[in-house]
Amino acid sequence: MGRSLVFSTNIPLRFSQTPRSISPRLHPNQYQPHKLSPKSSTGYRKVGIFNTNSKRKLCTRALISEVSNQRQYPKVAAKSTGPIPPSQLIEVVVMDAVNKPRNITYKGLTDLVTDTDKMSEVAILEVVKKNFGDHLILGEEGGIIGDTSSDYLWCIDPLDGTTNFAHCYPSFAVSVGVLFQGNPAAAAVVEFVGGPMCWNTRTFTATAGGGAFCNGQKIHPSKTDKVEQSLLVTGFGYDHDDAWITNIELFKEFTDISRGVRRLGAAAVDMCHVALGVAEAYWEYRLKPWDMAAGVLIVEEAGGAVTRMDGGKFCVFDRSVLVSNGAVHAKLLERIAPATEKLKSKGIDFSLWYKPESYVTDL
Amino acid sequence: MGRSLVFSTNIPLRFSQTPRSISPRLHPNQYQPHKLSPKSSTGYRKVGIFNTNSKRKLCTRALISEVSNQRQYPKVAAKSTGPIPPSQLIEVVVMDAVNKPRNITYKGLTDLVTDTDKMSEVAILEVVKKNFGDHLILGEEGGIIGDTSSDYLWCIDPLDGTTNFAHCYPSFAVSVGVLFQGNPAAAAVVEFVGGPMCWNTRTFTATAGGGAFCNGQKIHPSKTDKVEQSLLVTGFGYDHDDAWITNIELFKEFTDISRGVRRLGAAAVDMCHVALGVAEAYWEYRLKPWDMAAGVLIVEEAGGAVTRMDGGKFCVFDRSVLVSNGAVHAKLLERIAPATEKLKSKGIDFSLWYKPESYVTDL
Repeated sequence: MGRSLVFSTNIPLRFSQTPRSISPRLHPNQYQPHKLSPKSSTGYRKVGIFNTNSKRKLCTRALISEVSNQRQYPKVAAKSTGPIPPSQLIEVVVMDAVNKPRNITYKGLTDLVTDTDKMSEVAILEVVKKNFGDHLILGEEGGIIGDTSSDYLWCIDPLDGTTNFAHCYPSFAVSVGVLFQGNPAAAAVVEFVGGPMCWNTRTFTATAGGGAFCNGQKIHPSKTDKVEQSLLVTGFGYDHDDAWITNIELFKEFTDISRGVRRLGAAAVDMCHVALGVAEAYWEYRLKPWDMAAGVLIVEEAGGAVTRMDGGKFCVFDRSVLVSNGAVHAKLLERIAPATEKLKSKGIDFSLWYKPESYVTDL
Repeated sequence: MGRSLVFSTNIPLRFSQTPRSISPRLHPNQYQPHKLSPKSSTGYRKVGIFNTNSKRKLCTRALISEVSNQRQYPKVAAKSTGPIPPSQLIEVVVMDAVNKPRNITYKGLTDLVTDTDKMSEVAILEVVKKNFGDHLILGEEGGIIGDTSSDYLWCIDPLDGTTNFAHCYPSFAVSVGVLFQGNPAAAAVVEFVGGPMCWNTRTFTATAGGGAFCNGQKIHPSKTDKVEQSLLVTGFGYDHDDAWITNIELFKEFTDISRGVRRLGAAAVDMCHVALGVAEAYWEYRLKPWDMAAGVLIVEEAGGAVTRMDGGKFCVFDRSVLVSNGAVHAKLLERIAPATEKLKSKGIDFSLWYKPESYVTDL
């Protein structure tokens, strides 16, 4: 596994203070309205910010989203996992996604690369080769390797969120997604959360048609169907081109009208957060197959929606992605799709970014 | 403490998978260059992204920052904690900062409030009153209460990062800072990190002249002195005014030239992350004393710098803040200060936001 094992498993968390757990009751999927007792005897100056009308609005959230006319989007998951059963695929996917060694160096002024990413990919390669000797692999650092006549393509990001990793800023992840005939069949994302003195991991998994899970528990996106009640997430790539400028504009627009747009810096993690229901949607231009292959399946299998940013049917070789809880997807596309069409009309290339030559797909 | 205790202490973390701990070696303060062995036998397509020159640049980071001519900024910490010793103050500050109950409702379309924030403040009030019966308290929800002739002013944010809390999105915090004659004397921020299935806390503390700590361990900011090697953080408030627009522009500019600008959504947490060395700087317009009182002391005591966004001497009643590791402060001000001066020249109000009437300070 290489000489510098930075991430180690099975080591108990150490605390210099008493560990604690919190269980906020108000997960977006679980909101339970409750009666408030007046607190006139607190001696506090009245500031007039508590409003029973707005409270009523919150209580009807679930109802509104249930009766909303939710549009269906084309599925991105593979129709089957082929001759290899999902259970066997996911076992190797998860094996690949954990416990990778890495260290940092530069790709460029504002980009980074971990030298041992390549070593990680070698380790992943060994696992895949050992289990499925004839499969094709596409890694962020190493490019394409293996048999291009295979139905299976492994898309591997040994470190999603390199900048965060370099700064010890949470979160970052290892992302492994395997395609069958071009469509996501199985996925795992191991997210490293918390940061110094609080590091922990959370493992997201999904198989085509089999649902999505976090640490073994079934997950679902939120039901929020209003942009103004949504927490959104986006990313800005290293190429500061027209698409980058357009997304700064989208960031501004949605920061203006939503609860906020987060910028965390790890695409696979951002998608998993949508699947987990802690954010309503995530979009980005210029992602690569290894950034998206796992995340999109996890979102879709959790019950969310996945399209390109122009609203078209998504495949992992595309150059943009919008994932959401489904309920808010159409409303986001009202702004995101025209902005993307405008880029296309300016001649910006949105053809498939990369597909290994002679890799046969049903796309 | 109220009927709905959402955060509970002393409950062991539960994992549905084996817990793990990671200890990335490459904390910005701890970078150790190492020799790479060539990996020509991996069978990987060469992609030409590894560059020994850029690696050399990384290796000299610490040296560069050590020889840089680091400007000094006026201190914001109180010169003393007055007749109450720091140890006694911090004990009550920390007591106040933990274990607050809360539930969510709305303040407005894109703002939220927790109904039990007021109950939290009542609890805090009780703790302060019990220990220091004659102190003044300024809470986010409850306004000002207590004896305005006191030298001590407690600035309390019972929930910093309300939107994140409402969505279970990490991080959010409880922030308590106490001023002596207007200047920060003691501070505690309890950060709730990780998110669903990974919740944990990290407690930051500082006293004037006594250093800054995370979970009891002394902390320091990074030494990075280059904007292009910096991870930055900012925030956008609820008022979408000229200052908001200016900061969208700053977000764009620094996203262009730095390693990235994170948007996490919890001011006290963002400042603590600078103190911890996981981000180089954070700035925001339109913060309130309860957002800043604790965070600025923690950054300064860790060894960082604190100014207004125009570069002027900061006090917690100001309307803007820039905190950094110190080394990168002047370079950030080269862009941030002129943008802020431009707002002032347009007549945007940057006078002290609020200072309790008749509260005597040495400002």
